[in-house]
Amino acid sequence: MTQPVKALQARTKGDFSAFEQTIIQRRDLRQDDVAIEIKYCGICHSDVSMVQWQGAHFPMVPGHEISGIVTAVGSDVKDFKPGDRVGVGCFVNSCGKCAACRAGREQFCEKGTVIVFDSEDDDGTITQGGYSQAIVVKDHFVLHIPDELSLADAAPLLCAGITTYNPMKQYQIGAGSKVAVIGLGGLGHIAVQFAAKMGADVTVLGHSESKREEAQQFGATSYEILRDPADFAPLAGQYDFILNTVAVDLNIGDYLPLLKFNGTLCYVGIPSDEIHFNLFSMFGNQANITASNVGGIALTQEMLDFAAKNHIKPQIEMIGIDDVADAYQNILDSKVHYRYVIDMATLK
Amino acid sequence: MTQPVKALQARTKGDFSAFEQTIIQRRDLRQDDVAIEIKYCGICHSDVSMVQWQGAHFPMVPGHEISGIVTAVGSDVKDFKPGDRVGVGCFVNSCGKCAACRAGREQFCEKGTVIVFDSEDDDGTITQGGYSQAIVVKDHFVLHIPDELSLADAAPLLCAGITTYNPMKQYQIGAGSKVAVIGLGGLGHIAVQFAAKMGADVTVLGHSESKREEAQQFGATSYEILRDPADFAPLAGQYDFILNTVAVDLNIGDYLPLLKFNGTLCYVGIPSDEIHFNLFSMFGNQANITASNVGGIALTQEMLDFAAKNHIKPQIEMIGIDDVADAYQNILDSKVHYRYVIDMATLK
Repeated sequence: MTQPVKALQARTKGDFSAFEQTIIQRRDLRQDDVAIEIKYCGICHSDVSMVQWQGAHFPMVPGHEISGIVTAVGSDVKDFKPGDRVGVGCFVNSCGKCAACRAGREQFCEKGTVIVFDSEDDDGTITQGGYSQAIVVKDHFVLHIPDELSLADAAPLLCAGITTYNPMKQYQIGAGSKVAVIGLGGLGHIAVQFAAKMGADVTVLGHSESKREEAQQFGATSYEILRDPADFAPLAGQYDFILNTVAVDLNIGDYLPLLKFNGTLCYVGIPSDEIHFNLFSMFGNQANITASNVGGIALTQEMLDFAAKNHIKPQIEMIGIDDVADAYQNILDSKVHYRYVIDMATLK
Repeated sequence: MTQPVKALQARTKGDFSAFEQTIIQRRDLRQDDVAIEIKYCGICHSDVSMVQWQGAHFPMVPGHEISGIVTAVGSDVKDFKPGDRVGVGCFVNSCGKCAACRAGREQFCEKGTVIVFDSEDDDGTITQGGYSQAIVVKDHFVLHIPDELSLADAAPLLCAGITTYNPMKQYQIGAGSKVAVIGLGGLGHIAVQFAAKMGADVTVLGHSESKREEAQQFGATSYEILRDPADFAPLAGQYDFILNTVAVDLNIGDYLPLLKFNGTLCYVGIPSDEIHFNLFSMFGNQANITASNVGGIALTQEMLDFAAKNHIKPQIEMIGIDDVADAYQNILDSKVHYRYVIDMATLK
């Protein structure tokens, strides 16, 4: 049995004009399921990438930054009840038994993590995401949204928040850390807030003067404009950790010498092309390059609680369901002012 | 004042036929200097690279894997006396005061580390290396060679040994670690011995069947032949640490998925071209890429003591001074059977 719910579908690959409001089916509640009325869904750059991706299934309902209210729970669900404020992020199922799942890293499930949309679930259905009126999700993958966080602000944290929080916890950012954040966009402006509230001294590495003031409002103590190779030299050996939130192809070899001995440069924005650099650029400080991929469920809950306690929230621009195509184009054109959130009450 | 000593010079860039025996000058002993009669000097791939390097000073005396006997010491030298068995590795001076030097990482001296050859020392002279009858070195940069190690075997450890030992200590290889070593050459065959004696389970990743037996003799428990992309899949997620000792351009993106969560792939052989890979190849396990550059003086002494205690030694082929040009060509042609060592008694 299934339940019909309203949703916005991308009908064909790469064609933003082909978004269409429609009815999709959600499964009936299983014993361990939570049914959620979706209030808000953030738009992430990876939604746009998926709609452009050759390998995706169409029609597709994107959306993996979901917040809403519990409407019903299965008989075995103990941690949620109707009326609870909840969120759902990037994934909705995993085996629960492998070493990664047992370590709380469901995103690396050895059997394959089930993503909240365009992913085959264990019943053989293809998942459909958060641009929708409602969703049914296994309880383990549902997050509590603390009272101090509005549902609208919480939505982008479910992806952009955990994506930046996870590597900072992994690399033990805290008091005394010197952190640099490349880029001040949807990911960067949250990363700066997290790092600052963790006690780090935060520098934003940008390309123009325009975002200096906002960087400081988010908690950065410094803002450096890096355009030419010569701009990098004065910053050599300064940072314990550099978070690259920019998905374009940077000359990353210019950035590596800015790290202290054995420091780490971590990608969270993933360029589609190969990255390339000369190893001599990390030979003088034994630097590391890594990439971080969202974060596990328990850590996502910790991130939400940390954000609530420390008054961290994304800068959002609320849009209606009819604005999604324009929003996608603006994201591609780098015109978004931090993060779009869809008000799901506008679904007709 | 200076002292004339015999040496072998590379006279011009890239021309191995232009090696010439000659007389060079060594400085008179300073208060903190140790004078050493050189008995053996290893030949490292980086010697060859330096002789081919556009930016090098010619004529040049290469050689940075030096072992010999102390002949005299300056008035302030306490740790060495004539007759001591000693070694000198890659560097012979650093500021001693910066954070890196104080941390025992003289190779990252913020004022610039003085390399044992082709490097400007603090008196303005250009250093001349170990293909020579004698050398004078500041005591801090001289190592004790334990009695259990022959002087000939000790020579290659001063570079190839510390180059492989340093990252294994940095990344805490020990009992329970699963380590893979890419390549079984001058660096690789020592790396396998170190990792095995540290208690790790060691796999050699090779390209052909020919070195399987030797890999096991050095302490490897497994030998895997990786030629095609399909060869990599069965090894996914196996290793805590991969040491890449191969200086050629590998498809490193094929190797990254072989790491466990947050594992590290470390380069010690440095390709001259940029490395390149798609970040998706490290996105599934949050892998790290790094590069390691020799190691500090205290750690080099620890490495020599560890090698002596654990009966670790390089496989060497002893050659005379007249064989150096042929040896260089063999190194370029990958025909060297692990490591050449020059018997300095053959200097005429």
